[in-house]
Formats: sequence, structure tokens, C-alpha cells
Amino acid sequence: MMKKIALVMGSASDWPTLTYAAELLDQFNVPYERHVISAHRMPQQLQQFATTAATNNFGVIIAGAGGAAHLPGMLAANTVLPVIGIPVESHALHGMDSLLSIVQMPAGVSVATMAIGKAGAKNAALMAIQMLALNSEALTQKLIAFRTRQTEEAQASEQQLQ
Amino acid sequence: MMKKIALVMGSASDWPTLTYAAELLDQFNVPYERHVISAHRMPQQLQQFATTAATNNFGVIIAGAGGAAHLPGMLAANTVLPVIGIPVESHALHGMDSLLSIVQMPAGVSVATMAIGKAGAKNAALMAIQMLALNSEALTQKLIAFRTRQTEEAQASEQQLQ
Amino acid sequence: MMKKIALVMGSASDWPTLTYAAELLDQFNVPYERHVISAHRMPQQLQQFATTAATNNFGVIIAGAGGAAHLPGMLAANTVLPVIGIPVESHALHGMDSLLSIVQMPAGVSVATMAIGKAGAKNAALMAIQMLALNSEALTQKLIAFRTRQTEEAQASEQQLQ
Amino acid sequence: MMKKIALVMGSASDWPTLTYAAELLDQFNVPYERHVISAHRMPQQLQQFATTAATNNFGVIIAGAGGAAHLPGMLAANTVLPVIGIPVESHALHGMDSLLSIVQMPAGVSVATMAIGKAGAKNAALMAIQMLALNSEALTQKLIAFRTRQTEEAQASEQQLQ
Amino acid sequence: MMKKIALVMGSASDWPTLTYAAELLDQFNVPYERHVISAHRMPQQLQQFATTAATNNFGVIIAGAGGAAHLPGMLAANTVLPVIGIPVESHALHGMDSLLSIVQMPAGVSVATMAIGKAGAKNAALMAIQMLALNSEALTQKLIAFRTRQTEEAQASEQQLQ
Amino acid sequence: MMKKIALVMGSASDWPTLTYAAELLDQFNVPYERHVISAHRMPQQLQQFATTAATNNFGVIIAGAGGAAHLPGMLAANTVLPVIGIPVESHALHGMDSLLSIVQMPAGVSVATMAIGKAGAKNAALMAIQMLALNSEALTQKLIAFRTRQTEEAQASEQQLQ
Amino acid sequence: MMKKIALVMGSASDWPTLTYAAELLDQFNVPYERHVISAHRMPQQLQQFATTAATNNFGVIIAGAGGAAHLPGMLAANTVLPVIGIPVESHALHGMDSLLSIVQMPAGVSVATMAIGKAGAKNAALMAIQMLALNSEALTQKLIAFRTRQTEEAQASEQQLQ
Amino acid sequence: MMKKIALVMGSASDWPTLTYAAELLDQFNVPYERHVISAHRMPQQLQQFATTAATNNFGVIIAGAGGAAHLPGMLAANTVLPVIGIPVESHALHGMDSLLSIVQMPAGVSVATMAIGKAGAKNAALMAIQMLALNSEALTQKLIAFRTRQTEEAQASEQQLQ
Repeated sequence: MMKKIALVMGSASDWPTLTYAAELLDQFNVPYERHVISAHRMPQQLQQFATTAATNNFGVIIAGAGGAAHLPGMLAANTVLPVIGIPVESHALHGMDSLLSIVQMPAGVSVATMAIGKAGAKNAALMAIQMLALNSEALTQKLIAFRTRQTEEAQASEQQLQ
Repeated sequence: MMKKIALVMGSASDWPTLTYAAELLDQFNVPYERHVISAHRMPQQLQQFATTAATNNFGVIIAGAGGAAHLPGMLAANTVLPVIGIPVESHALHGMDSLLSIVQMPAGVSVATMAIGKAGAKNAALMAIQMLALNSEALTQKLIAFRTRQTEEAQASEQQLQ
Repeated sequence: MMKKIALVMGSASDWPTLTYAAELLDQFNVPYERHVISAHRMPQQLQQFATTAATNNFGVIIAGAGGAAHLPGMLAANTVLPVIGIPVESHALHGMDSLLSIVQMPAGVSVATMAIGKAGAKNAALMAIQMLALNSEALTQKLIAFRTRQTEEAQASEQQLQ
Repeated sequence: MMKKIALVMGSASDWPTLTYAAELLDQFNVPYERHVISAHRMPQQLQQFATTAATNNFGVIIAGAGGAAHLPGMLAANTVLPVIGIPVESHALHGMDSLLSIVQMPAGVSVATMAIGKAGAKNAALMAIQMLALNSEALTQKLIAFRTRQTEEAQASEQQLQ
Repeated sequence: MMKKIALVMGSASDWPTLTYAAELLDQFNVPYERHVISAHRMPQQLQQFATTAATNNFGVIIAGAGGAAHLPGMLAANTVLPVIGIPVESHALHGMDSLLSIVQMPAGVSVATMAIGKAGAKNAALMAIQMLALNSEALTQKLIAFRTRQTEEAQASEQQLQ
Repeated sequence: MMKKIALVMGSASDWPTLTYAAELLDQFNVPYERHVISAHRMPQQLQQFATTAATNNFGVIIAGAGGAAHLPGMLAANTVLPVIGIPVESHALHGMDSLLSIVQMPAGVSVATMAIGKAGAKNAALMAIQMLALNSEALTQKLIAFRTRQTEEAQASEQQLQ
Repeated sequence: MMKKIALVMGSASDWPTLTYAAELLDQFNVPYERHVISAHRMPQQLQQFATTAATNNFGVIIAGAGGAAHLPGMLAANTVLPVIGIPVESHALHGMDSLLSIVQMPAGVSVATMAIGKAGAKNAALMAIQMLALNSEALTQKLIAFRTRQTEEAQASEQQLQ
Repeated sequence: MMKKIALVMGSASDWPTLTYAAELLDQFNVPYERHVISAHRMPQQLQQFATTAATNNFGVIIAGAGGAAHLPGMLAANTVLPVIGIPVESHALHGMDSLLSIVQMPAGVSVATMAIGKAGAKNAALMAIQMLALNSEALTQKLIAFRTRQTEEAQASEQQLQ
């Protein structure tokens, strides 16, 4: 049975960004669960969630947060499942704080960091699928088809221009 | 009995910075304990430490960390004691990552952030003492004396110049 | 009698940010006074205010300012009461100038710096209350209740999602 | 048979950073190949390598580069295998250019970005192993053991302090 | 016969910026072709285009892209024709990521980088024309006339003020 | 009688930077006094110095400070004499904090800000002399001679190259 | 006779910023002339203007420009009159490019740099007046009155709050 | 006859960077002249040099400068020859000021900007040669040979690793 992906956000206000990840997971028919787990307001639930994620049949965790974004790193600290971090665009510093808080992890606990905002959310889903595809020829074929379509769309955009 | 200060570092390699906080606490004869608690390598101990800090007679927590510095914020998430954060100077980004990871906390969980590095460590100790002094005339007098001496030293430096 | 909190802004135009601190203080029934004291336009009043703050029954000073934000640091230079700084979001540099002007204090005079803008204002109030709570079991209980409610709201947000 | 990891550097001068990834892979007995493939000096070899990586039994690609670091993104553009990017610390801008060139990928092609420099190299190896472990109970156990040891070392550091 | 200029964009969404380059080329009657070639979605077409650009009678390539902008550098890696890069303004980081991804090229492969956004697009066209003018007295005269007109317009603006 | 220049530093440790200003003032035979006045450790002396500077025959104040550099702005707040600010290079942030703390003054109180470090110190002296020269033909002639010599030295450097 | 102030902008589009300088000069009845002189489009006029500014009875030059803002520095290179630079807020980088291009002058040619945008424009006018006031008791009195009024307005704002 | 390249530095202290450009020009046997022309100390010589560069048989101008680097832009303002700018690494800000001062040119006057420091100097020479090669089959062949050698060296580095 295919492992699920966890789509975790630090606050419901991050959903407008993470929805782009959900759309892609839907498009690939990859099972996922959405969760609001605030690193700072729900630290015990965070630990509970992360330490049981593997036994709860999750394969990959995608986590988005903004500002002093501790969610992805703290999830990663409590599981050996791969954690993918999405820096949500923050108000004053436009996500530079989110990015550095997520990507500059110390050696020993790893977070796969994506671009700030919407593009990062889409690519987080793709990266999660690429991980699961390591063990699924079907997913690999879907990824190849997705990429081919993506290339064709870019080519169509080129042909329209000519 | 005076509450203790906890001096927590994410790694023993942060000690060369936090030692400046310890020196000042020694100078004021304020009791403190030093602890290495890595947010990412010891997440359960972090939670354990923070949730029991108040009952263990700590009054203020000083925490220093570098890079994606999650230690001060995660301690603050698990206690209502005031937490003071010291951004340790990191290698590539010189502590700008540490600073933003500590200071840009979301509303609801507060970290009192200091300057990057050594000056921040000294001022973390001073801020902790200022907090305890709210309830201690003796400490207040020591702070006033410290400040007077500090002013006199600066004035001496001025007189030496003339 | 409980000490008051001073809520000081560099200009009336900082009120839309500092109002978030006031709301929280109201919510905790912590007495406070609001003041406009410009570091650059009212330097003598600043000094007058800070040097008499302790005797005027203030316990903690919260100060918000933007750009070359000298207000928190100069208040701190004139009192041993703890000073909490809120970097107000500035126009061109979005508060990065405010943040660095407040947080990078030299050793010897300490300012407890918060996040840029609204979240920082809320957390400044929380930090001030946490300081006063060191000496007030009632305030400590209120803080614990506040945190519990905050956690419950985040959990409700999670349950709504499911 | 376990898939190999490709450890690709843009220039031999990146080896002092990437060697930290190699050490960890050695420690986990995960098979890997090292390659120098410059995105700008060997663009055809890059394409050749990336398009055949899956059929050549690679499972994950780790790529490190500095400055205008195009290597990880261009590898990712030519394969559906997961690509992990290590921003090598550059001279003038200390790796901020490397980081942004790697992490800010457009939607549709994903690079799992790590911290700048040595910590990023170690974590790239860990992330690659975590990906392979999705399909290997043995690797999962090794990761858990690695983490336990890591926690114990941090605890030992704490005990030494006491 | 005068060589053509290639105006290449990473995505059709870059056209609102690159149109400013096209306008100037039109104004100088310099022949050009517009192309959408995504470095990440069309890597093989990129290589095909760049390696045949010289034989296809292109003289200069102008390439605009945003975020982790690999297009100008990868075109330059596949041709000895001069490549001019336009950092398109990105959403979160306002083109600072685009700029660093384009300008910080390693020694050996050169990209002539322009300002972020609209001004950069105009100047990319001017720089391409200046290159072609090295071998065309007619173009040189047009450039001198353009500059004279530009100076006169600035002077008119000054006279209007008086 | 020619007005004096005040050369004020926040700490004796700023002297290695401000000495470059002193050298230039010596070279122009412009009278000056050196003072250590810490904004944070000597706030009352700062106010005393600034409010009496005009009557004490100072014409221009040069002030250098680093980090959260409040000295130039607070001097300016207490006098209508022109104040020139030198951002001293700080340790972690290389003077970017000093620069923003000095230059981003709010409307109403003005500081003439120079470059970070040594070049800024030299230019602070030149700017002060240029101000005094508004009322001194002798100083104006010295400035013209200084500039001529400077140009000749640059030309000599050019001739040496040929 | 009082020397005039030159208010120079790189482009008419800088007027919305520089108008704040003009307003203050009007308020102080200080004579000034406005000029559009583009460093890049009118380099010969720039040189002509700057080299004759002193003999044309100018006392101080205020220059505002954005982006790669070369106007203030090049004016300063051609005169010994004091030049005050206003970094106009640029589109993509919000004036950080303007600020660095103006303030980081090499030793030997000095530009008195103000804050980015509107506040900088106002303070440029104040600084120019402060320079002229070195030789005018009347202007000095006006400055003192301006400051007093400014303080009173801030105090009124404080009283309104109470 | 082949046009010469002008290699212009703002100060003799920039030579350690620009020497990398000279080496490459030597390697390609492209004639060039070296000049020290300070934008700020020799503004009239700058104008003289730039306005006569075309008639003096220069084809391309390479200009390197640091800090508030006005040299490339001011040369470009006085000629229609292509100008290539090298941001020399500055002390405090590591060349970020140099880069922004050179690259952020306003529309109408174009500077082809290279990477900060040594790599930028090498690539400036390559870009100049690429421009001249538009009109020289011999230079084009040399460039292709240079690139081939460069690729072979990178491949040798790869083979050495295996």
C-alpha cells in the first residue's frame, strides 16, 4: 500500500500557499492528509505527530511555515521520514526569514527546502512524489508524463509566439 | 529564595559565546545552571526541560543558538517563563540567519532577542537580571552600581583621551 | 500594588502597530500608560521619562519605533527597568532598518527585541506580562490560561480542517 | 539491489565541501559515485548524465555548486529522480548567491535545497539516505541508530558540562 | 547581412518585461526573433537552440528569466555568441534572486547582466545594438542619434522646470 | 575665530576608524577636539555636550559609532549644528547595522551619513571642512589644492602604469 | 548675500521625492534653484553645472537619484561645495541600491547621505540650511524655532493621547 | 585592424582584480591598453577618455571599480562603445555595493555587468572578446578552442576523480 503524504501547516493562514501542494498531490492521485500543527502553539502535538508518523503509514512530510519557521525542522527532529519545508512568504521580510529559518539546519537533521511561496508549495508536492516514485514504477511513469506535458505546454507557448 | 537562571545552548560549540553571559551572572552572584539542549538532537529533553523549568525553580531562560536557531522559540513554546534568545554568529551568514530565526516569532509566543554574538550574550545576562530585579531591591541596587561603574569607565576613557 | 507598563511610541503614527500590544495588556488587565516620546524630537522628555520611570511605579517599558529606531535603546540607557523594543515596519526597508537599529545594542545596555510589526507588538505585551508574572502567581495563571486557549484555538483549526 | 547515489560537484574545488556528504554515505554503507560535471563547462555531459541516471541505477542525485549555481536545477530539469542541492559557500557573497540560485526554482522542477556549506553537505547525504530508506527497513534502522547515537552524543555533552 | 538578435524568455510570463527590449530593437530596425525557451522545462531545446544559434545567423542572444534564473547562463554555456541577461523581477525577493543567479557566473562562461526589470530590458537591447554597431557605421550613427535625442529630452525636462 | 570640529566616538575602540578623520583635520590645520561619549553609557553627558556645543564654539560635529549606532542621531537631536555620522564597521554584520542605524533618520532631525569605515572617516573630515569653507576663502583654497593634489596623484598612478 | 541651494534631480520623475526638500526650503525662505541634470544622459551638463556652481553663487548642492545613483557623487567630484545625496526609492530594490550607490563613496570625495525617500528629502533641506546657518545667526534662530515647534508638535501629540 | 580593448580601473588598487582580465586578453592576443581613471578624482579625464575612445580605435571598454562604483556607468554615459563593468570586491560589504552601483543603471545607458571580483574580471575579458569576435572568424575560432580546452580540463578533472 502506498504511503501517505502529510501536508502540515503552522497555521490555517498558510493554506492559501499549501493548497498548491494539495492540488498537485490530487493530480497525481497520491493519498495525503492535511494538518494544522503549530510548532509554537501545539509543541506536544507536533512531537506526537512526528514520532508516530512512520507507524501511521506516512512516507513523507511536507511542512509550510512563515517567519521564524520552526515547524519543518522540529518535525524533522522527531522522525527519520524525509521532511520537505516550504517557506511561506512573510509580511515584512517577504519570506527571507522563513527561508533562512528552514534551510539553515545544523548537520544531523535535514530539511529539504523549497522556494518561497506558491512555486515552493508545488515543488514540495513534486519532490514528495519523486521520493515515493523511487519505489513505484507507476508514479515514475506519471512523473515522466507530467514532465512531458509540462514541456509540451512550454513548447506550445513558444509556438504561439511564432 | 531567588529563582535560578537557565543558560541553555544548542551545542557545546556555542559556549565561547554564552560564556560572556555566565561571566556577568557570576559578577552579579545570580544563581544559574548551564545546559546543552539541542532543539534538533534532543527534542524530547527540550520539551521536558522547558515544561518543568518553572517548577524546578528557574525564573528566566537564556538560550543561544545559531543558523536555523529553533532552540529559544521552542523553549518559549513550552513554558510561560520569559525566554531570552542569543543569536550565535554562524559561519556563512554571520548570524543573520540566527537572528531572523529567533526574532521573527509569530504572535503568541515571545522571545526577547539580543544582538548577534558576544554583546548579545552579555546583554542577555543583564536582561535576565533586570527581570529578576523587578522583585529584588538588592539586585536593582547592583544593576544601578553596575551602570554607574560602566558610565565611569566610559568617562575615564574620555578623560584619558584629553 | 502591581507595577505599570509603559507603552511608548516614537510617533503617533506608530500607534496602529502598538495598539496590538495595548489590546493584549487590556485582555490581561495589566495597568499601562501610553506615551508619545520621540527620541529625536523630545530627547529631554525621553531622558526625564526614563530616569523617573522606576520611581513612577513603572515595571517594564515597551517601546516601538521605525527606521533609525533609537527610542528603545535610549530609554534603556536611562533606566535599569527592562525595556522591550518593537521594530515598527518602515516604508522603504520594511523594518529591517528598525530591527537592526534596535537589536544590535552594544554590551552593557540591553533591549529585549521582538519581531517586526504587529506580531512583535503582541509579543512585547506578552513578554512584559511574563516579566511581571515572575512575581505574581495570578498573572502566571492567566498566562497559562492564555496559552491553553491559544493551543485550543490552534487545535480547533486543525479539527475544522479534518 | 540498492540504488546508487550520485554525488556531483560543479568543480573539483567543491570537493572540500562535498566530502562531508561522502563521509556520511560511507558511514551508512550506501553505494555512491562521485562526479565532476560543470553545468557551464560540460553542459552536454550534464544532460547526458542526468537523462541516463535512472537507467544507470542511480536513485538520488546530490549536487553541490557555488555562485550562480545552475548544476542542481539543470540536473533536475533532465531527470525525475530527486535532486538534492548543496549551496557551496562562495567567496564574496558567502553562499547567499549559491543558496538563492538553487532554492528559488520555478514551479515544475524541484530541487531539495540544504544549508550553505558543510552542514548542508552532511544533511544532503542524510536526506538521500532517508529517501532510500522509504524502501529499506535496514536503512531505516540505521537512520534510527544514527539519530539515537547523535542524541546520546548531545546528552553526553550535556553531562560533561554538569 | 546583419546578424539577428535572439530575444529569449524563460516563460511567456516574462514578456511584459522583455517587451521593452523588443520595442527598442524595433526602434532601431534591428532584426530579431522572440522565443520562449524554459531552461527547466525545455532543457534539450535550450541546448539545441544555443548550439545552433551562430549558424542560424544570430549575433547576440538576450535572455530574461526570474527566480533561480538559469536560462542566460545555460545559453552562454552552449555558444560563444555574447549572451545578455535580464533579471526579471520575481515575486517574493523582487529580483534579487534573479540578479544573483544571472550575474554571479563562474570564470569561463560570461553573461552580460543588466538591471532588474524594465530598465534592464531596455538596456539589454541597447547593449546588443552596441555590440552589432562595432561592425556597422550605420548602427553607430543611430546610437549616437538615439543618445543625442535622449540628452535633448532630458534637457527639455530641465527647461520645462525653469 | 574659526569654529572647532568635535570628533566624537561612541567608544575608544572606534578610534582606529576615527583617526583617519583626525589625520585629515590635522592636514588642513582645522582645530578639533576628540571626545568619547557613549550614547548608551553616558546619555546625560551626550545631552550636555550636544546642547552646549554651539556655545562652546563648535561648528560641526563628527560622530562615529557601530552596531545599533545611536550616537550621531542623538547628538543631532540636541543641537542645530550639522552632525556627520560615520558607520563604524561592526563585527557580525560588517557595518550594515551601523549604516542603517545612522542613515535612516526620521524627517526633522538630519545626520549627514558617510561610507562604512575608514573611507567614511576621511570623508567625514572633508565634509566638515567643506561646511566650514562656506565661510572661509582660505579653507576653500586648501580644499581646491587638496583636490588638485589628489587628481595629480591619480594621474601619476595612471602615468606609472603606462 | 545668502548663497543659493541647488536642488538637482536625475530625472523629473524624482520630483515627487525632492518636492519635500523644496517645501522645507520655502518654509525657511532659503533661495534655491531646481534642476534636472541626468548623470547618464547629460554628463557634460553635469560637469558644467558642478564646476561653475561655486562661482554661480551656490552654497550647497542637494542631489537626489535612484538605482545606480551616480549623480550626487559625480557632482561632488566636480566641486568643493558640500553635496547632500538623497537616495530615491527605486522600484525593485526599494532604494537599497540608491543608498549604497550614494553613501559608499571612496575616500577623497564626500557626499552627505540622507535616508531613503521622503524623510531623506526633508532632512537634506534641513542639513543644507544647517550648513548655511553656520554663517547666519538669523538662519540659526529659524532652525531653533523650527526644532522647538517640532518638539511642541510631538508633545501635543503626547498630550492628545493622554 | 582589430580594435583595442580599454582596461580601465578606478584606482591602482583594483589591479589585483583586473589583472585576471589582462591575462585572458594576453592569452587571446587581443590588443589592449590599461588605464587608471578615477571617476571621482579624475572626472574630466574620464570624460575626455570616453568621448574620444571610439576615434582612438578602442572597440570595447572594460571598467572595474568598488564601493559606490561610478566608473563603468559614467564611461558608458560618454560613449556608445559597449562598456563592461567589473564589481571589485569592497571591504565592508564584499562587493554588494559595487555590484548594485554598476548593474542598476537606468534605462538609456547600458553597462554589461559581470560577477564580483576575479571571476568577473576573467569573464569581462571573455565578453569583450566575444563582442570583437562578432566580426572576426579568427577570434571566434579561438573562443571555440578556448571553450573546448576548458571543457576538456573539466572532463580531465572528472576522469582524475574516477
